[in-house]
Amino acid sequence: MEVKVLKNILSANDQIAARNRELLDSKGIFTINIMSSPGAGKTSLLLETIKRLKDRFKIGVIEGDISSRIDADRIAQEGVPAVQINTGGECHLDANMTGTALANMPLDKINLLFIENVGNLICPGEFQLGENKKVLISSVPEGDDKPYKYPLMFHIADVIVLNKIDLLPYVRFNMENFTKGVKALNQNAEIIQVSCVTGEGLDKWVAWLLANVTRPAR
Amino acid sequence: MEVKVLKNILSANDQIAARNRELLDSKGIFTINIMSSPGAGKTSLLLETIKRLKDRFKIGVIEGDISSRIDADRIAQEGVPAVQINTGGECHLDANMTGTALANMPLDKINLLFIENVGNLICPGEFQLGENKKVLISSVPEGDDKPYKYPLMFHIADVIVLNKIDLLPYVRFNMENFTKGVKALNQNAEIIQVSCVTGEGLDKWVAWLLANVTRPAR
Repeated sequence: MEVKVLKNILSANDQIAARNRELLDSKGIFTINIMSSPGAGKTSLLLETIKRLKDRFKIGVIEGDISSRIDADRIAQEGVPAVQINTGGECHLDANMTGTALANMPLDKINLLFIENVGNLICPGEFQLGENKKVLISSVPEGDDKPYKYPLMFHIADVIVLNKIDLLPYVRFNMENFTKGVKALNQNAEIIQVSCVTGEGLDKWVAWLLANVTRPAR
Repeated sequence: MEVKVLKNILSANDQIAARNRELLDSKGIFTINIMSSPGAGKTSLLLETIKRLKDRFKIGVIEGDISSRIDADRIAQEGVPAVQINTGGECHLDANMTGTALANMPLDKINLLFIENVGNLICPGEFQLGENKKVLISSVPEGDDKPYKYPLMFHIADVIVLNKIDLLPYVRFNMENFTKGVKALNQNAEIIQVSCVTGEGLDKWVAWLLANVTRPAR
């Protein structure tokens, strides 16, 4: 008897993620999944990004939170279409939730979509949503040991934004130890130091976006 | 036919947690489960607590992390028995991992056990470990909106330690909004403001411990 060997069977989540990606590609939308610990500054970075790029891209935002609509309201005030997903306890967004949000987003009116994941440095790393790039925000007050303790997230990120550098004078943070930890897990991801309060470094973040956001092949 | 109605069937985790609790009670050990976001200051609070209470209690510590032994090494330097659990990807401690750690802890030599959970403001809230009290650490740079976005953790905590108050002058943090959010979820939990850097408020935290740590009935 011949034994059938099946390869590349996608998990249910990955199947739906591939479908999301196909839809987004067909609409010419580049998608970025933003992940971090609670309170590292995902929404703040998004607000600063929207200010700087809303004339160059047609931006849309999907907000993921266990509950509340605080973040989507903040985004919508900038005149950007925002959909809030309340996971109701789930600790991460998955492809199916993302698909539901896409069905409620004016896809013909946007070409750059940010998905702000639930604040969690662990579980979101395991779920594809259909994105083109993954951004990890780490923040100075969380400490320089985070790459050592939460390796997956640092391993899979396409770029690492180190936020709240305005707090460096007030906390213990060894930049060398942080960088060494990241590099051991991820040779390719650039580390971009920013402060969403002072604006320092945001030009480098914007430059990364401009260099990396491409119109998907149709 | 009579229908059997079964009540109080514990989940597998809760069964093991009850067994852990029975073991801990039999040894006269009071157990505290410490939870927070990554980098909110669980280990720092523990180190300050050990300094202040190691002459009054025989302390032991179980450290939970996805990987690394950074925290257990820091604790062990204080001369306190420490066991590190590496969950290898799991985003929370469960009762079974805790049971394994207990088997490696000198239970006859301790009477106050701290369990430092994996840094995660969501999933650890769903798993009993066998503890007597749950402590939630929130930290100022995470922002005042955390109770609204992560309600379960604030709801189940027996006490909330707000750490890093030394950073209040440098970040936007509305204490009234934070307190209002907590009180809406949890009428009973005291909010204790501390800084593990300056030591401010730690006397109140120690007072809470002294008032709440009881020797379990044998």
